[in-house]
Amino acid sequence: MGRIPKSDEWIKVVETRLTRPSLKDNTGDVDRLLKGIEKGLQREKVRSDFSLVKRIPNLLREYGYNIRALLYEDGHCWHLMDVYPSRSDLRLYGLAVDMGSSTVVVQLVNLVKKTVKEEISFINPQNEIGADILTRIHFASEDGGLDRLQTLLIDKLNQEIRHVASKEGIETDAIVAMSVAGNTTMTHLFLGLSPYWICREPYIPVVNNPALLRCAELGLALHSEAPVLVFPNVGSYLGGDLIAGILASGMAEADDLSILVDVGTNAEVVIGNRDWLVACAGAAGPALEGGVASMGMMAGPGVIDKVRINPVSKAFSVRTIQDKPPMGICGSGLIDLVAQLFLAGMIDLRGKFVAERCAERLQEMDGIKHLIVMDAKDSGTGKDLTLSQPDIDALIRSKAAMYTILTTITTMLNVSMKEISRFNIAGTFGSYIDPRSAITLGMIPDLPLETYRPLGNTSLNGACQALLSAAARDEIYRIRDRITYVELNVNQEFMNLFSAAKFIPHTDRSLFPSVQSY
Amino acid sequence: MGRIPKSDEWIKVVETRLTRPSLKDNTGDVDRLLKGIEKGLQREKVRSDFSLVKRIPNLLREYGYNIRALLYEDGHCWHLMDVYPSRSDLRLYGLAVDMGSSTVVVQLVNLVKKTVKEEISFINPQNEIGADILTRIHFASEDGGLDRLQTLLIDKLNQEIRHVASKEGIETDAIVAMSVAGNTTMTHLFLGLSPYWICREPYIPVVNNPALLRCAELGLALHSEAPVLVFPNVGSYLGGDLIAGILASGMAEADDLSILVDVGTNAEVVIGNRDWLVACAGAAGPALEGGVASMGMMAGPGVIDKVRINPVSKAFSVRTIQDKPPMGICGSGLIDLVAQLFLAGMIDLRGKFVAERCAERLQEMDGIKHLIVMDAKDSGTGKDLTLSQPDIDALIRSKAAMYTILTTITTMLNVSMKEISRFNIAGTFGSYIDPRSAITLGMIPDLPLETYRPLGNTSLNGACQALLSAAARDEIYRIRDRITYVELNVNQEFMNLFSAAKFIPHTDRSLFPSVQSY
Repeated sequence: MGRIPKSDEWIKVVETRLTRPSLKDNTGDVDRLLKGIEKGLQREKVRSDFSLVKRIPNLLREYGYNIRALLYEDGHCWHLMDVYPSRSDLRLYGLAVDMGSSTVVVQLVNLVKKTVKEEISFINPQNEIGADILTRIHFASEDGGLDRLQTLLIDKLNQEIRHVASKEGIETDAIVAMSVAGNTTMTHLFLGLSPYWICREPYIPVVNNPALLRCAELGLALHSEAPVLVFPNVGSYLGGDLIAGILASGMAEADDLSILVDVGTNAEVVIGNRDWLVACAGAAGPALEGGVASMGMMAGPGVIDKVRINPVSKAFSVRTIQDKPPMGICGSGLIDLVAQLFLAGMIDLRGKFVAERCAERLQEMDGIKHLIVMDAKDSGTGKDLTLSQPDIDALIRSKAAMYTILTTITTMLNVSMKEISRFNIAGTFGSYIDPRSAITLGMIPDLPLETYRPLGNTSLNGACQALLSAAARDEIYRIRDRITYVELNVNQEFMNLFSAAKFIPHTDRSLFPSVQSY
Repeated sequence: MGRIPKSDEWIKVVETRLTRPSLKDNTGDVDRLLKGIEKGLQREKVRSDFSLVKRIPNLLREYGYNIRALLYEDGHCWHLMDVYPSRSDLRLYGLAVDMGSSTVVVQLVNLVKKTVKEEISFINPQNEIGADILTRIHFASEDGGLDRLQTLLIDKLNQEIRHVASKEGIETDAIVAMSVAGNTTMTHLFLGLSPYWICREPYIPVVNNPALLRCAELGLALHSEAPVLVFPNVGSYLGGDLIAGILASGMAEADDLSILVDVGTNAEVVIGNRDWLVACAGAAGPALEGGVASMGMMAGPGVIDKVRINPVSKAFSVRTIQDKPPMGICGSGLIDLVAQLFLAGMIDLRGKFVAERCAERLQEMDGIKHLIVMDAKDSGTGKDLTLSQPDIDALIRSKAAMYTILTTITTMLNVSMKEISRFNIAGTFGSYIDPRSAITLGMIPDLPLETYRPLGNTSLNGACQALLSAAARDEIYRIRDRITYVELNVNQEFMNLFSAAKFIPHTDRSLFPSVQSY
C-alpha cells in the first residue's frame, strides 16, 4: 500500500471553524456547515443526506461551531456522513472484504493510520444451503430463497463485525466504510440481486457496475451512513474478485507483460500490461485445491503443505501446518507430493504408479491402487493417509487444463511465454504453491523462478487498496472497462493441447528444460 | 405557464430500444439499460437507485427490451425512477403544494399535458395543536411534539392524495413528483426539522436549501421513487412561499421595477427587477385578512366580498360569495366596506364613526359603537351583522403598517413609487382586494389602477411552475441567492411614518390625489 499517496482519500475528515450565526449572518445551520466544509475542500461540492440534516443544529451548538466533518466522495460530489467535535480523538475504521463463496475474509482497517488491525475469516454461511454456487443460484429462485441467502450472509457478517469491533475496543459506528470484492454470483447474493440469468445463456448479470450503496440499504451494522463499495464485474464469469486481483498485482500499471492466475476450481487467467488486458477462465476442476483427493483437506493444523522424497531412499519427509501430526493434505501439498513422486520415479510421465519404485507403499483397496503416504502410527488420524491413482489422475487433468488455458490464451494473443516478466499467482491457496513443484508437474510454464510472485489473497488486498485510495478505487472501473474477456473455445485444437499436457511435465519435453526426471 | 418551453423538464420520459443481450454482448441488465437511456439523453449521466436495480432484470425481459424510462434530474445527474413498456399509455402526475400554516392547497398536475387536473384545499391539520405558528414551534420542542406535527400533516396529505388520485381515476404511484412552497417554519415542520432556533435570536433555520428528497423519506404515499422539491428560504422570516411568489410574478426576469406584496398577518414586500431584489417583512396584524372583525370570516358561501354605499341615500348593497344570504365579511370585503364608509362620510379621516352620517345604523353595545351593516332580517345568521369601532381601528393600524413598510423600503432604496411598473398582489386573499378601495384607505400607493396585478395563490403557482420546468426550478435558487433581506428597523422614524399613515388615506393628502372624500 506504500504507493498510495496520503492525500488520495475518498473517505476523509475535514476540520472546519464556522462563523457563528448572528443577526448579520442568518445562514441556516446546514448551509453554514456545508459552505464551511466546501471552503476546506477547495470549493468542491458537498451534500448532506437528510437523516443527518435533522441532527446538525444541535451538533453545531454542542460543538461550538468548530467541527470535524466526515465525508465520502461519490461521482465528484462529497457526502457528509457525520460531524464530530474539533480536536476529538477520531478512531475511524473501514472493512475490506473478500466475499468468497467458500470463505469470507474480513480486514478491519484503521483509516487514519492506514493499517490493518484485525483479519478474520469464516465459512460462508450460505454453505448451509449448498457448498457449490449452482445450488445457491437454484435456491435463490425458490420462493424466499434469495432473501434467505442474503440474510444468512448479512447476519453472519454483522455478528463478525460486532465481534471484531469489540476486539478492537470500538463501537460499530466507528466503522465508516466497506469495500467488497467477490465473484459475480457472490456479489449478487450479497446485494440481494437475483443470480437467475447469470447461469443461463447468454449469462447476463443484473449489474456490472453497482453504484456506491449505503450500508443501511443492506442492513449492515456499521455507521448508518457508511458507504459500501462493491467491486464491478466484467460478466457472469469474471467478477470483482479478479478485478481486485488485477488492482493488487499492479499489472494494469506496468509497462512489461504480466500474467495473473487465480488457481482454483475455475482457473482465471489475465494477461496484459498498462495498454491492454485480456482475461479468460476455464474449468480446472477442484483437484488443484486438494478438495477431492481421499486425504485432501483445507489448510489447517496438521495438514501437510510440503513434501520431500529422498530419491534414493524413497523416505518421505513432510511439513505440516503448526507441526501437528499429519491429518491430510492441502492443494499445495498435493502438488508438492505428486511432483516429488515423479522426481523419485514413483509415478511415470502419465502419472501412473510405478510398482517397483513404490514397493510396499503401494496397496490395492477395492481394486484401486493406493500409495500409503503416512503410516497409521505416524498420522494424526490413527489411520493410513493414502493417495489413490484416481487422485493423481484428477490432479493431472487439472494441471493439464491450467497449462492448456495458458497456452491457448498466449497463442491466441501471439505472446510467447518468454515475454512474461511477471507471473502473479493470486489466491491464498496459490500463494502456498511451490512454483518449482508446479513447473515439475507442467502446470505452469518453465520460467525463471523469480518470475513467479505469490500474491496471497489479492481479492482482499485489492478491496483494502480501494478502501484507502480514491485513485485505486477509480482504477477498478478503468480496469473493468479495459478488460477484454475471451471465451475459451473448447474445440478439437484445445482438446489436442489438453491431451499433450496430460503428461508430466508435457509430451513436448523441450518446453520444460529445467525438469529433470528420475 | 405559457412561457415554459416544452423540452425544459426535470422529470421526463425517455423511450429506448435496447440491444438484446447475446453471447457477444453480455453487458449487465442495469448497465445496458442505463447506457441506452444515456444515449437518448445525449450522453448525460444516469443513475439508478438500488431499490429499482432489483426489479430491472424482469422488467426488461417482460417488456422485450423496448422500454420507457421515467427520470428526474438532480445536480446534473439523471435518476431512474421507473421503467414502463414502450408505447404504453403513460399517465404521469405531479403535485404542487402551497403549504400554508392555515390552509394547504394541492394541485394535481398532468405532467404530460402540463395541465392542472384537480385543486383541493384543506385546513392545515396542525391547527389542532395551535392556529398560530408560535404555538406549534413551542409544541415542537416538547417530547414527541415535532413528530406529532409532522405526522398530522403527512397523514392528512396522504389522505387527500389518495382522494384526489381516486377522483382522477389513477393509482397514487402515477404521481411521480411533488413541489412544495411554504414559509420557513411550515417547511421545517413538513420536513420534520426542528423550528426551535427559528424563533430565537439570531433566528437560524436548520436549512436554507433543502436537497431534493425522496417521498419515502417523508412517508408520502406517491410513487416510491418520487422526488420532493421543497422551496428554499432566505431565512426564518422569508420563506419558500415568497420565493415561489417571486417566481410566479416573473419580476426577477423583468427589466422594469416591480413590487410584490403578500398581504397577510405578516406583510411581505419584495421590490426589484432582473438585476436586484430586496425583501422585507413586517407585522401588519390580522385585520387585513378580516380575521379579527366581529363579523369577520374566511371566504366562503354567504360571505360579503364587495360592498357599495350610495353616498346620497347611504343605502348599502353587498355582494356575497355564491349569492347566499350574508353571513359575515372577508378581508377584501372589509377593505371595501371601510373605504365605502369613508367615501360616504360615515367615518372620518381617523376612521371614527360620524354619528350624524351613520344615523340609526350606529348603535352602542357594551359601551362600544357598532355600525349595523346588515339587519338581522336580511342576514343569513338571523342576527345583525355589525362593524365595531375597534374593528375599524384595527384595520387602520394594519393598513398603516402596510403603507409604512412600503414607504420605508422604497425610501431606503431611494426608489420613488412612480418608478414601479407593476405592483403584484400575491395570495388568494390579496387577489380579491379591490385596488381602488385599498388606495382609498391609503393602504397601497396611489398608482394607476392598471399597475396593480392580483396574482392569486403565487405560492401554489410558483410550486407548479417549478414542477413543470427545470429552468423555473433552477431559477428559485438564483432568486434565493439574489435576494437581500432587510430588517425593518422599528425606530422613531418608522413610528412617525406609521402615525402619519393612520389617517384615511394619509395625513399628506398630496400622496393620494385620486382619493376624493365626501
